[in-house]
Amino acid sequence: HIDSVPGGGNYDGQVGSMGAVEVAWALEDAGARTRHPLEVVIFPNEEGGKTGSRALAGEVRAFELDIVTASGYTIGDGTRRIGGDPDRIAEAARGPRSVSGFFELHVEQGAVLERAGLDIGVVEGIVGIRRWNARITGFANHAGTTPMGQRQDALLAAAEVIRAVRAVVTSEPGTQVGTVGKIEVQPGAPNVIPGSVLLTVEIRDLSMDKIDTVFAALEVEVSRIEAESDTRIELEEFYVSHAAPTEERFRRYIETACATLGYRQQRMPSGAGHDAQSIARLGPIGMIFVPSRDGISHSPLEFTPDESIARGASVLLEALLRADQAES
Amino acid sequence: HIDSVPGGGNYDGQVGSMGAVEVAWALEDAGARTRHPLEVVIFPNEEGGKTGSRALAGEVRAFELDIVTASGYTIGDGTRRIGGDPDRIAEAARGPRSVSGFFELHVEQGAVLERAGLDIGVVEGIVGIRRWNARITGFANHAGTTPMGQRQDALLAAAEVIRAVRAVVTSEPGTQVGTVGKIEVQPGAPNVIPGSVLLTVEIRDLSMDKIDTVFAALEVEVSRIEAESDTRIELEEFYVSHAAPTEERFRRYIETACATLGYRQQRMPSGAGHDAQSIARLGPIGMIFVPSRDGISHSPLEFTPDESIARGASVLLEALLRADQAES
Repeated sequence: HIDSVPGGGNYDGQVGSMGAVEVAWALEDAGARTRHPLEVVIFPNEEGGKTGSRALAGEVRAFELDIVTASGYTIGDGTRRIGGDPDRIAEAARGPRSVSGFFELHVEQGAVLERAGLDIGVVEGIVGIRRWNARITGFANHAGTTPMGQRQDALLAAAEVIRAVRAVVTSEPGTQVGTVGKIEVQPGAPNVIPGSVLLTVEIRDLSMDKIDTVFAALEVEVSRIEAESDTRIELEEFYVSHAAPTEERFRRYIETACATLGYRQQRMPSGAGHDAQSIARLGPIGMIFVPSRDGISHSPLEFTPDESIARGASVLLEALLRADQAES
Repeated sequence: HIDSVPGGGNYDGQVGSMGAVEVAWALEDAGARTRHPLEVVIFPNEEGGKTGSRALAGEVRAFELDIVTASGYTIGDGTRRIGGDPDRIAEAARGPRSVSGFFELHVEQGAVLERAGLDIGVVEGIVGIRRWNARITGFANHAGTTPMGQRQDALLAAAEVIRAVRAVVTSEPGTQVGTVGKIEVQPGAPNVIPGSVLLTVEIRDLSMDKIDTVFAALEVEVSRIEAESDTRIELEEFYVSHAAPTEERFRRYIETACATLGYRQQRMPSGAGHDAQSIARLGPIGMIFVPSRDGISHSPLEFTPDESIARGASVLLEALLRADQAES
């Protein structure tokens, strides 16, 4: 994709777009001809909801085009500004199984490859996400006159929930992650014991079952915390995004390409969403990661060295040629 | 005091004001004459900064009169509206040692007396308060792509600080209390690992030394949390209110009054501030608590039964007469 988040950098998205163009040029320069028709697709508005790739998958709904974005324009306006016709967006849709194969090259957005000293990440899939609101109800009271043993402190209970999220996520091996990113406390004064807290819990993994298992363990902890803190804690799901595994054959094309080129690789999940996730509805996908310095993304500080990008584009070309030969 | 907080109840303040009036009437009805001149003082704006009692102590500064309160009026305007002259507020001040003794009757605002089944609290003093801002700096990062082992999660560190406040406060016997009442997290999105957190820490005790000891223990915990969470935590004091002990002789007058009247009492600190705290600068103080139902205050739900208030007023009268006889 060619877009970036507001205030973002020059690598998240653009590395894949430019890598695909470079692959097409390399094939042209070599006079090579693929068995399958080859398309280079540069998606718009991945960051704002994967609009481009979801249009290709036939998933964009009319109301989305009227959403005003951070730019001040609606997505429909933006489509017109780049020469498109939002009224005809449905015509962009491809049918199921219309794609024999799809590869996406992207920066990792984490520091796993950099820390492991590896060249390439073979993406096992885009993780699923579930998000919940946790509403914790205690009793707001005077911070001076209420003895420690008589408190129903919603923020103290929240602190236990935050620790529990980390504990249940890290209690078994795997690449699952869990985050509490947002918290609001009422009444929120230095001299009042917090009466209620609203916080978010997010769990991501390649396996939706793993997410459910981790959440079940969290629910057990939450019941214990409720009893110990004399508060009430309600968990309500408000968002779910299903995992999109990559195709095992396509992972092997990438691994074989790495072996041929002498690059060090490992398999890994993608914790972030990507356009490939949309295209997975149309056909088998493969995804190639290159390292991100310090794991930084969505920031002007994001950076991937030229030689890493070149290795990624080389793997994209090699894997593509293997898929072109092997796929029906 | 005659005022209450906005949205408050009918007991915090008014019980003492009406109790004092009742004592004056009882003395009048009995034709009793005290050795010392006796004054009934009903303070305004205790809740908004003890303005009335601090005026008597000569502590109100000119700029305070220009502060706009929740009513929409300044304190100076309010003074005019009840027939006072803010320009002459300095004339209300009494000199040091100008008061031979001062008693205040007040509702407890906690549930200590109610839970212990007692009639009267003999206040040992008004606790001191110190408040700090804790600024926790981690690193904001993508909640999907950053493995659990590579995070610098400011909110996870904050959760440890919140637990540590409770742990250090309850680690030794005593009536000290500690509270984290306010927390703000940046950037504050469900899918971003928190990069920074600002929270408040408050510790109260009758002894400023005890507060310092508890805080020193917290600082040790904070250093440990910094190291374990790979974050930086700065503690900065932004408020201090010094403890105001009551006079030991005055506590005994109250205890003797309770013994005479057959009321069950215990000594206890006041976790909340009171007008008596201001008057302690002018002479010896004593303070009498009556139970609060469920420990609720600053709420329309605050309640003290009539018979409890009557017992408080009776103790106020008896203790006053004892002080009048014994004090020079």
